[in-house]
Amino acid sequence: MTVFEATCTAPVNIAVVKYWGKRDTSLILPTNSSLSVTLNQDQLHSKTTIRASADFTSDRLWLNGIEESIPSNNRLVACLRETRALRTEMEAKDSALPKLAQLNIHICSENNFPTAAGLASSASGYACLVYTLSQLFQLPLDHSDLSIVARQGSGSACRSLFGGFVAWDMGEKADGSDSKAVLIEDEKHWPDLQALICVVSDAKKGTSSTAGMQLTVKTSPLLQHRIKDVVPKRMEDMIAAIKEKDFPRFAELTMRDSNQFHAVCLDTYPPIFYMNDISRSIIRIITEYNKDGVKAAYTFDAGPNAVIYAPKENMAEIYAILSHYFPGHVFDDSLSLLKDGASVAALPENFDTRISTVFAEGSVKQILHTEVGDGPRVLASQEHGLLNAEGLPKRLA
Amino acid sequence: MTVFEATCTAPVNIAVVKYWGKRDTSLILPTNSSLSVTLNQDQLHSKTTIRASADFTSDRLWLNGIEESIPSNNRLVACLRETRALRTEMEAKDSALPKLAQLNIHICSENNFPTAAGLASSASGYACLVYTLSQLFQLPLDHSDLSIVARQGSGSACRSLFGGFVAWDMGEKADGSDSKAVLIEDEKHWPDLQALICVVSDAKKGTSSTAGMQLTVKTSPLLQHRIKDVVPKRMEDMIAAIKEKDFPRFAELTMRDSNQFHAVCLDTYPPIFYMNDISRSIIRIITEYNKDGVKAAYTFDAGPNAVIYAPKENMAEIYAILSHYFPGHVFDDSLSLLKDGASVAALPENFDTRISTVFAEGSVKQILHTEVGDGPRVLASQEHGLLNAEGLPKRLA
Repeated sequence: MTVFEATCTAPVNIAVVKYWGKRDTSLILPTNSSLSVTLNQDQLHSKTTIRASADFTSDRLWLNGIEESIPSNNRLVACLRETRALRTEMEAKDSALPKLAQLNIHICSENNFPTAAGLASSASGYACLVYTLSQLFQLPLDHSDLSIVARQGSGSACRSLFGGFVAWDMGEKADGSDSKAVLIEDEKHWPDLQALICVVSDAKKGTSSTAGMQLTVKTSPLLQHRIKDVVPKRMEDMIAAIKEKDFPRFAELTMRDSNQFHAVCLDTYPPIFYMNDISRSIIRIITEYNKDGVKAAYTFDAGPNAVIYAPKENMAEIYAILSHYFPGHVFDDSLSLLKDGASVAALPENFDTRISTVFAEGSVKQILHTEVGDGPRVLASQEHGLLNAEGLPKRLA
Repeated sequence: MTVFEATCTAPVNIAVVKYWGKRDTSLILPTNSSLSVTLNQDQLHSKTTIRASADFTSDRLWLNGIEESIPSNNRLVACLRETRALRTEMEAKDSALPKLAQLNIHICSENNFPTAAGLASSASGYACLVYTLSQLFQLPLDHSDLSIVARQGSGSACRSLFGGFVAWDMGEKADGSDSKAVLIEDEKHWPDLQALICVVSDAKKGTSSTAGMQLTVKTSPLLQHRIKDVVPKRMEDMIAAIKEKDFPRFAELTMRDSNQFHAVCLDTYPPIFYMNDISRSIIRIITEYNKDGVKAAYTFDAGPNAVIYAPKENMAEIYAILSHYFPGHVFDDSLSLLKDGASVAALPENFDTRISTVFAEGSVKQILHTEVGDGPRVLASQEHGLLNAEGLPKRLA
């Protein structure tokens, strides 16, 4: 019997113009366009194997080794329904095609980063799910088409269908057919741009972004201004900054947009807070570092973690500063910042007299060094597949 | 020789629609109207004695027992110039009046609350200065007229010229002659409304409000929307809520406006933060307390301290909650909340299971219990004056 199976990985993306607010919550249509940078999946990715088989008695899903219910997850159901419908059409037109759309499937998905790190895994996860389904079903869709399906799993997932610099065009149509990801520049465009992800310790679980953004839509007067009067121009400016590889402009727009996203969270009633005192101190440190010219940009998603974008040449210095203020973190030096046993760079002159407070051990738990990366990858299932011969996960939690 | 002297006190006011941004920085004309509640000066006040004498060789000023330079303080100079000009006019019209405008003056001013508490003292201080000058010079001005002078010392000072509920009408004229305080309702209108001031410990000195607000005017796109589209309607709503003594409406507007003020601070570039993790936790606690109906309102000015407005009947419960989460504070029980040795009220049922974290000793340093109060008061200098026979402070720091 032929095994119908595909295995893929998909990257994480971190927005520099933020998505916050839906105009249609079931189709996941946003209230504004957004733009993100795709991070290298050598460091961070979701990996998914999907197998279709007549032996399977139902659709099943394992996420990080734990079986999850499919029917209770409307968004997952939508992604399966859409891709199967397309496969059904293909099979109707070409009777030579195997009848995959009618088979049950087993889905096994893993992130190579701990969920505890608080990094959004739904974007890479849904991008990987939809991309793997498209490989399994051999769908004749390009990445923008697939992004429309992935968007219905998790809005920001649509941007993980591409590498490099990716816009999510909000679109206008009620059916969402023009609300999709568009490649601005690929991962080779700006190889100098790197990122440090700072995982910040936080006792409190924040408001989920799904609930939070709709409360903002409902209650924040400032969000309406952001949507109408700020983001359209900011998208244009950001695309120009990326095309010109103008780091100071890219950085300022990134920081301003992160600030404004958290401002509309605060203008929500009751207010939503994602940043804590450690996040604020990272902003203060980067602001001080940028005093004589913009050399780094912070951005914060719906949690206290910071992502710092900077040109490669500044990274050793930025890491030296972060190490000084946030002792006791784990450093994932995947890009060999400190290669050949080199020590951390020195602090910029007088920096520690300008900001004197050093934070408690472990205030920042982990720092990951990464860079701009490519879009989803197809792997050989025989070698890399996550399911065993019986169609069950090789690894369970 | 006749001694020309006046001694007055003036109250603190805490805005419920915030002032943030000047359209004219030298005249201190605001970008939006604002509204505040005047607090009882039995608990918090500035007190000022001003004496005019031919024996004095120059104008001199002592603030909390420390001599300060007058000429280097443009705002103070403006208040002196304006009031002396009015006195000069009066003297020109009526030759029987003593020639006070030509005499040097000694000004001695004290706050009865520690500057370290981080409570804005410039509002009560400038209101008291201008009111005392008006008494000394016997100026024929009403409180709104005087507020125009006090405004030039510190914007929010204009609102401390009245007790009760006070609007600062932004005005339209370029000379600022219509930018003044207006009484909405006096201190007898809503005797049930009380306040708890929570003095929050903070390591970092925040951005000064003078510098901060102009950076917001210059860089925050959201401020423009607040000014034009949010505040005008909010002022109307707030005035209606006060007139109707509608606490839930008053409270929601107060909290929304505090949130939005801090949101535009965050939308500033680089961003300005006044609230810290303790401030945020107070918001979270009050939000939880309001879950089944709005029973308390928080508001935060340009610092981490919270002011909580609530009807008298809720105060014991609110204090019980604050005591539970913030041990180790000093309680200024000036309104005898716990009178006759009564113990603190019990926590609302299950409250501590909904929010479990208790904060470190001294996270909130002090809690003051106060209420709505009256406007500036004239005291008998002989009994209450701050200057001795030589015209020097009775108390030096």
